[in-house]
Amino acid sequence: MTLKIAIAGLGRIGQIHLENLLQLKEVQVVGATDPIQASLKFAESRGVKSYDSFDSLLDESGCEAVVICSPTDTHADYTIRAAEKGKHIFCEKPLDLSLDKVNEVIAVIERSQTKLMLGFNRRFDKEFMSVKEQVLNDAIGDLHIVRITSRDPKAPPASYIAHSGGIFLDMSIHDFDMARFIVGKEVVQVYAQGAVRIDPEIGAAGDLDTAVIQLTFSDQTIAVIDNSRQAVYGYDQRIEAFGSSGMIRAENRTTDRHELFTAKGVHSALPEYFFLERYAEAYKTELKSFVKHLKQGTAISPNAYDGLASLKIGLAAKRSIEEQRPVHLDEFNS
Amino acid sequence: MTLKIAIAGLGRIGQIHLENLLQLKEVQVVGATDPIQASLKFAESRGVKSYDSFDSLLDESGCEAVVICSPTDTHADYTIRAAEKGKHIFCEKPLDLSLDKVNEVIAVIERSQTKLMLGFNRRFDKEFMSVKEQVLNDAIGDLHIVRITSRDPKAPPASYIAHSGGIFLDMSIHDFDMARFIVGKEVVQVYAQGAVRIDPEIGAAGDLDTAVIQLTFSDQTIAVIDNSRQAVYGYDQRIEAFGSSGMIRAENRTTDRHELFTAKGVHSALPEYFFLERYAEAYKTELKSFVKHLKQGTAISPNAYDGLASLKIGLAAKRSIEEQRPVHLDEFNS
Amino acid sequence: MTLKIAIAGLGRIGQIHLENLLQLKEVQVVGATDPIQASLKFAESRGVKSYDSFDSLLDESGCEAVVICSPTDTHADYTIRAAEKGKHIFCEKPLDLSLDKVNEVIAVIERSQTKLMLGFNRRFDKEFMSVKEQVLNDAIGDLHIVRITSRDPKAPPASYIAHSGGIFLDMSIHDFDMARFIVGKEVVQVYAQGAVRIDPEIGAAGDLDTAVIQLTFSDQTIAVIDNSRQAVYGYDQRIEAFGSSGMIRAENRTTDRHELFTAKGVHSALPEYFFLERYAEAYKTELKSFVKHLKQGTAISPNAYDGLASLKIGLAAKRSIEEQRPVHLDEFNS
Amino acid sequence: MTLKIAIAGLGRIGQIHLENLLQLKEVQVVGATDPIQASLKFAESRGVKSYDSFDSLLDESGCEAVVICSPTDTHADYTIRAAEKGKHIFCEKPLDLSLDKVNEVIAVIERSQTKLMLGFNRRFDKEFMSVKEQVLNDAIGDLHIVRITSRDPKAPPASYIAHSGGIFLDMSIHDFDMARFIVGKEVVQVYAQGAVRIDPEIGAAGDLDTAVIQLTFSDQTIAVIDNSRQAVYGYDQRIEAFGSSGMIRAENRTTDRHELFTAKGVHSALPEYFFLERYAEAYKTELKSFVKHLKQGTAISPNAYDGLASLKIGLAAKRSIEEQRPVHLDEFNS
Repeated sequence: MTLKIAIAGLGRIGQIHLENLLQLKEVQVVGATDPIQASLKFAESRGVKSYDSFDSLLDESGCEAVVICSPTDTHADYTIRAAEKGKHIFCEKPLDLSLDKVNEVIAVIERSQTKLMLGFNRRFDKEFMSVKEQVLNDAIGDLHIVRITSRDPKAPPASYIAHSGGIFLDMSIHDFDMARFIVGKEVVQVYAQGAVRIDPEIGAAGDLDTAVIQLTFSDQTIAVIDNSRQAVYGYDQRIEAFGSSGMIRAENRTTDRHELFTAKGVHSALPEYFFLERYAEAYKTELKSFVKHLKQGTAISPNAYDGLASLKIGLAAKRSIEEQRPVHLDEFNS
Repeated sequence: MTLKIAIAGLGRIGQIHLENLLQLKEVQVVGATDPIQASLKFAESRGVKSYDSFDSLLDESGCEAVVICSPTDTHADYTIRAAEKGKHIFCEKPLDLSLDKVNEVIAVIERSQTKLMLGFNRRFDKEFMSVKEQVLNDAIGDLHIVRITSRDPKAPPASYIAHSGGIFLDMSIHDFDMARFIVGKEVVQVYAQGAVRIDPEIGAAGDLDTAVIQLTFSDQTIAVIDNSRQAVYGYDQRIEAFGSSGMIRAENRTTDRHELFTAKGVHSALPEYFFLERYAEAYKTELKSFVKHLKQGTAISPNAYDGLASLKIGLAAKRSIEEQRPVHLDEFNS
Repeated sequence: MTLKIAIAGLGRIGQIHLENLLQLKEVQVVGATDPIQASLKFAESRGVKSYDSFDSLLDESGCEAVVICSPTDTHADYTIRAAEKGKHIFCEKPLDLSLDKVNEVIAVIERSQTKLMLGFNRRFDKEFMSVKEQVLNDAIGDLHIVRITSRDPKAPPASYIAHSGGIFLDMSIHDFDMARFIVGKEVVQVYAQGAVRIDPEIGAAGDLDTAVIQLTFSDQTIAVIDNSRQAVYGYDQRIEAFGSSGMIRAENRTTDRHELFTAKGVHSALPEYFFLERYAEAYKTELKSFVKHLKQGTAISPNAYDGLASLKIGLAAKRSIEEQRPVHLDEFNS
Repeated sequence: MTLKIAIAGLGRIGQIHLENLLQLKEVQVVGATDPIQASLKFAESRGVKSYDSFDSLLDESGCEAVVICSPTDTHADYTIRAAEKGKHIFCEKPLDLSLDKVNEVIAVIERSQTKLMLGFNRRFDKEFMSVKEQVLNDAIGDLHIVRITSRDPKAPPASYIAHSGGIFLDMSIHDFDMARFIVGKEVVQVYAQGAVRIDPEIGAAGDLDTAVIQLTFSDQTIAVIDNSRQAVYGYDQRIEAFGSSGMIRAENRTTDRHELFTAKGVHSALPEYFFLERYAEAYKTELKSFVKHLKQGTAISPNAYDGLASLKIGLAAKRSIEEQRPVHLDEFNS
């Protein structure tokens, strides 16, 4: 039974999703749209029909589901339009940077009976899945402390920063989702600290490039996240979960596993450079999961509620910085 | 400029090669053949036209090159037929288990001006390429000692053993090629020892399941290879090169990089299970190299001469076991 | 030129210091005191003369310096008495749990022109010295984030907890000193979170057994410390320093470095069990440093000011917990 | 019950043994001898009485056991003299380089009812003890292949080489003993290969500086040893034991466990430099074992028979090189 999927947005991540969709058995990619002509050509070179608008894609391609990887400010709108037409949705994160908008999306999704997966790709990384699996298997008992290190290899240009929503909503939000994923509980309080240490232009744009955030969960588990926009040694993505009967950690994957011994010391390889390398497999696994659950009619995760939860944590982190105090998530519940 | 490639043999490794060919840019897969109907269907499901014989594949598909992954006893014959028709050849190892036959193939190849790549896939593994690269970069100076560990996770059935050519020609031959690849010199002497420790049926079939082989190179470098048909912890594929100014080693890749700490100790993941997992990337890189060199008209490696060299080492190892003495490769030069 | 040293207190750590003093060249151990008869016998079995009071030890042994490892509540008093008699002092941490008392000790030390080393032994651990050395060598550039993990293998009994000063002054204080040592700047703000996850009796005693503390330094560097009273896999003592041009981390030393590969996974050894094992070498290096600086007349470190600084951080951490807010260290400057 | 021990020979290793003896509980060091006046002064500075000859040491010190670390050519003679006077003996390896002499020593020992421990210190290294322990615990099943890497950081001067007995009796003999220790069986055949790659003067002295030796045990287990006189990255001492249900390996201990991540790669520490560092603990454990077994009257290991077995393997390795063939140990049984 083939699932018909369309794709909106063929930028860098859209092209990756398209290639991955084409590899999936029992999936037919029935159409693509992108305002940029060159991007559409990419789809055509893969034998995928192009549509000149998101609406025509939804109406004419015959798609049952749509993968949305257009610019962030279209996510909520596209999601709502797709849901209203009964299409299932895979949407890149974030749904939106405003709570109201995300709540509106959720209301539409609930009403439409469609399903939405949110692109928190790291949940599908095999290192982190291994941590999650062992937590579920009770390998380390009750969780007490979770440490997440998440550092990018290179800071984005200040022009990007300006529209990013800030470090907490742009970068740390992946880690907020990861902390929730690993702990399996809800966050009740956030305390954040930050600094501008990498690039003064980031500071000039009103943002931070270095941050440490403490999340307190409903069961008293504490998660500590440390973020930097620039780790010169590459993409640093590690998790450590400590509990009553042990500790599990996921180390970085490296470009290779050689060890060179000379009179100067032992030299080995750096972590894979950035998310396209580190999460190449995760992007595939993510779409496989989306397709599998649609076919089986089973619950999809992460979904819009996960997006909402992480957005609140991000907003709380911003407020914590502004007001220099720990912030309860209750402040964001209406 | 698209290269037209056909494929002969769609068993396990043939299907992998076909999938990988289909991913290559500027390659058109123009046909496939296999005596088994179900295998042909696999090709058709990928949009590849099927032919009912190797000759019709060569004559009618319009192929410029052919990938041969049919059973071992067809390799030499198919290679000769393809070369005589001016087709370039990628052939799975071994070309043949007889020196005369391999020499005959080489003569045809030389006469035909076609090019042949032999499927010593491990040369394209990124761990081993990293070792080779550093040796070439003089990171460890002159090579003195090379250690290769190559152990399979599970012994094949005795029925396979009977037609395999024996451990040296079936299994160790990859390591002989790897030793030559790393050292970049020719082997002059071989000493082998072996035992039956895993499965008495392997002994009953006249073969060994455990072996240690010492290769002496023309520059006095010594390579030591240890083989086992069964390492219960998975596919163990490691190299260590020791030289005048350092040592480099390539460790196994593991299924993931978690570390679990409990009261009982630290637990981490095993090596990737077998060659399909460990060398998945290498198979792709190998075909990319084949295509690249054909398009550029540059020299292909490893080639039939590499196959000949490793075959001689394998035959010398067999003789070393039989006669319990070190054997000079000169004994195999006519 | 031999240095004459006396020792007060022959409990577990006192016996270790005594053995280490006896190994030092050009040191003469001229006397020991301890209220417990059996402990004095230990000194005598090592050929060290015993004295029946701290005063007689100072007055009659002819010591130039004294090593104080008596119970915590005697530290300040003994230090003052020794300083007033012109003896140099090595004192186990903490000097005292009250700011006033520590300030009083400092005033006496300054007046007396004696020198005091405080027993923050971890500064002399070779793993952490290696981190410090590379930070000083500018191997990682400007420091941005420091992570310290410090977990004990087993929670102390509640009876100990009651007189310990609480987790921040008893346990985390080592980490506060380590953070200051690595960063080489002063802390300006402290935010702490904690929980009772290990043992309800610790909670009943008004203390925490799990804590995460964020320290902000004068140069904006953020240090995050995570503490647990019980890591079932052993004493977990790690540091990671992240900066503008790299990251350095010190992993745990393990009981041995074997790796066992079986069908179940890879198994390796746990960290050394507790501080007596992990810091056995550090205790020796610490006393060597004390003796070396006394002989050379050079500055001793860590000293009473370091003790004061860490005490303030500990008090700030307590207040942060009580008032659930970040606390500026200014609040503790009179 | 105190054991009275004397020591003969106070060179580098003798001084280490003396210091270690002085640390042992219930041991009294009753005398020392050495032809060099300065060395005797070392003993006196430790409160140990000096004697002007080996005989006076034996006759007048009242020793029950003697530790012999005088030059190699005195070992057999001193051992015989001590045994004839009923003293137990700890003797540095080798007993002698001639089979006849070693057999003579064994005959005297047997007649005298004294006990002899031979200084194969590596058996007491905690890494290798860990391997042995797991082999005994059947953690890896039946042994199939053992790999020993043993490389010195720096070649000795040619003057040393001339009197060393050659690489097999001077250096590899430790590895022969280690192989026997791990496997717990006897060697039946030896095949050795070697080269001069480090220093032509070593070749001029008739010796090799690079060697690979294969040992076949009575149960068909194959051990492969690779030796080099010069690994520029430090003392490389590793063992790997592979068996029917797993593999265990002991990696080098390093000077510390830091990991430095920069844009150039990951840098970590080298192995401990040489035997004095690597085996510092083992020398202590070795003497503790000697004393313990003497006190308990239990069997001492390694003993003179172990020395004899390894000497035969070394002689077989030499013959294997000379005659370029595998050599059966039977050739050395009279």
